[in-house]
Amino acid sequence: MTDTPPARRAARVTLREVAERAGVSRSAVSFVMNGRTDQRLSDDVFDRVRRAADELGYRPNITAQTLRTGRSGTVALVSDFVSSTSFANSMVRGAMHELREHDTLLFTVDTQGDPELEEQLLQSLLGRDIDGVIYASMFTRTISLPRALAGVPTVLLNCVTADGSIDAVVPDEVAAGRDAARMLLDHGHRDGIWFVGALPAGSRGGAAWPEWAPIALTERRAGIEAVLAAAGTALAGEAEIDEDWDVANGRRAVAHLLAGSAAAPTALVCANDALAVGAYQALHHAGFDVPGDVSVVGFDGSPFARAVEPELTSIALPHIELGRRAAAMLAAPGDVPRLERVPMPILPGGSVGAPPSR
Amino acid sequence: MTDTPPARRAARVTLREVAERAGVSRSAVSFVMNGRTDQRLSDDVFDRVRRAADELGYRPNITAQTLRTGRSGTVALVSDFVSSTSFANSMVRGAMHELREHDTLLFTVDTQGDPELEEQLLQSLLGRDIDGVIYASMFTRTISLPRALAGVPTVLLNCVTADGSIDAVVPDEVAAGRDAARMLLDHGHRDGIWFVGALPAGSRGGAAWPEWAPIALTERRAGIEAVLAAAGTALAGEAEIDEDWDVANGRRAVAHLLAGSAAAPTALVCANDALAVGAYQALHHAGFDVPGDVSVVGFDGSPFARAVEPELTSIALPHIELGRRAAAMLAAPGDVPRLERVPMPILPGGSVGAPPSR
Repeated sequence: MTDTPPARRAARVTLREVAERAGVSRSAVSFVMNGRTDQRLSDDVFDRVRRAADELGYRPNITAQTLRTGRSGTVALVSDFVSSTSFANSMVRGAMHELREHDTLLFTVDTQGDPELEEQLLQSLLGRDIDGVIYASMFTRTISLPRALAGVPTVLLNCVTADGSIDAVVPDEVAAGRDAARMLLDHGHRDGIWFVGALPAGSRGGAAWPEWAPIALTERRAGIEAVLAAAGTALAGEAEIDEDWDVANGRRAVAHLLAGSAAAPTALVCANDALAVGAYQALHHAGFDVPGDVSVVGFDGSPFARAVEPELTSIALPHIELGRRAAAMLAAPGDVPRLERVPMPILPGGSVGAPPSR
Repeated sequence: MTDTPPARRAARVTLREVAERAGVSRSAVSFVMNGRTDQRLSDDVFDRVRRAADELGYRPNITAQTLRTGRSGTVALVSDFVSSTSFANSMVRGAMHELREHDTLLFTVDTQGDPELEEQLLQSLLGRDIDGVIYASMFTRTISLPRALAGVPTVLLNCVTADGSIDAVVPDEVAAGRDAARMLLDHGHRDGIWFVGALPAGSRGGAAWPEWAPIALTERRAGIEAVLAAAGTALAGEAEIDEDWDVANGRRAVAHLLAGSAAAPTALVCANDALAVGAYQALHHAGFDVPGDVSVVGFDGSPFARAVEPELTSIALPHIELGRRAAAMLAAPGDVPRLERVPMPILPGGSVGAPPSR
């Protein structure tokens, strides 16, 4: 911070100061602080050094430690918005827990999707002896690896490169779509299944994320369509969302769908849980019961799924597991690039039932 | 990571390698990389050094830079759960945005509330030339400053020390409670106002956070009671929650309240938005209209407030502003410890109206 006066900065205590306070040599301090056991020092010297270091607040310099051990024991999770935006940030928790098993600490930075800030943050991290990087995206998407990461052990989390040359961990969105469709078929739905949350033709994202080009949307839908096709049927129609995938837009889109379609849907597969909550509201206003008249399925497994009655059946993003597996992959490098697809569990609710008999 | 073979580690490119590739002296490289203008070097040398550094992926060592400039331009946000748990993490966004105005980068770490991990993380950060620390808590509470932070420029975010000796930024929870009560009085409520979310006698927290002792709860309630007392009235009663403050527990507590109280409440002030969503559901089941029969006020301004109809009126936690002010405070140290209380804005919804005439 430019405005911080030197007097208040954290002054680094030197080896020499610790040695003086403990009344021992500098090399004795160095041996103790580095945990070396190949030198014979008395317990008394050990105690005096430890006490002096403690009293002075001595902190071993990381660069010196890294030069000695070949590793710093710290990796970074670099993302666009993951640690500063809700929900997806449980990926950080998963990564942190797994890294702890490897005695490795995690620093997290968000770049806000700004290439210049990303470059500064990467230089700042890499200049501090980071052993590797988990490069994460809030939304599942295709990214270009920043040049600064060339040569740095890196695992992609919730994103991939176009050429598949970098280890990556992503949710299995196609399987999630298949599961959603299969669940509805199993309950007897067939010709009345609508999809809520399609992008308008030519759009690559909503108003908030115009260039998002979400893999999740295309893959979820591909899974749904594949299962319906295999059963000899297809989506009855789709409701487009060209703004945020939020509750209000879900309500509007489903109200429009109900007003305009000749036959009422028997089931709505919503691209995310917020849209599904909006769908509940529109169905309620139109006098439809969930799931008696219309079944609803969401995706994400977000807190929204627990905010409605009946609770929403949702195919959940396995954020903690995604983070955990990316960290495990970084800890155990492979010989060839790996792509791991993590299953998305079904979060059971009460929103799926048999279609009404007509 | 213990398992990372040396071959895949990020090898640090040295000044010497850059100098060799550029065909210049090591000091010339040092001058260029450190942006020094007190030496005369030709444009050609500048260009060759920059190109060679770029091609080799040279990264200046941060410790060397810090020794030269007296600052590293990086601070850390150290918290219990803020960056790995939803919602509160927009404090990170606020801090990051403000720090950018001061040309300062932000690293974030979560300690999971584990003192040993916290100690490791602080040593790892402080050994990497961090200029200062924003020490944050997910819930507003009283903390003990970790010993490792003695002498390090520190601002507390969403927490305070008992002795008030460290700069701190917290939400103005008492004022938020006053605002909630005043809003209800202004709509004509008086003797039918209940509080939902009291801790059972002797409890310091719910099942998930048994020792939480939340300042938010006591202060919100103190504000409510002060305003009601000044108007010559008091809370009609309270519903206790001894588990998580979630939707299901809110529903249960309010159902119990409605079944047990002689006179139906005219208004419910819920300790957070999730409880308020549960309150909506219980009211709906009991045949009460919101706000026609019962008004509902929440706290937090979370996404839950937008997941119900009518949208919930909530007193919002100003997370982004909290983060921003903590960062600004760290950037401009004061002479005496400061405590800044950030106003909590009213997030208007449709859940507050006049009490029913009886």
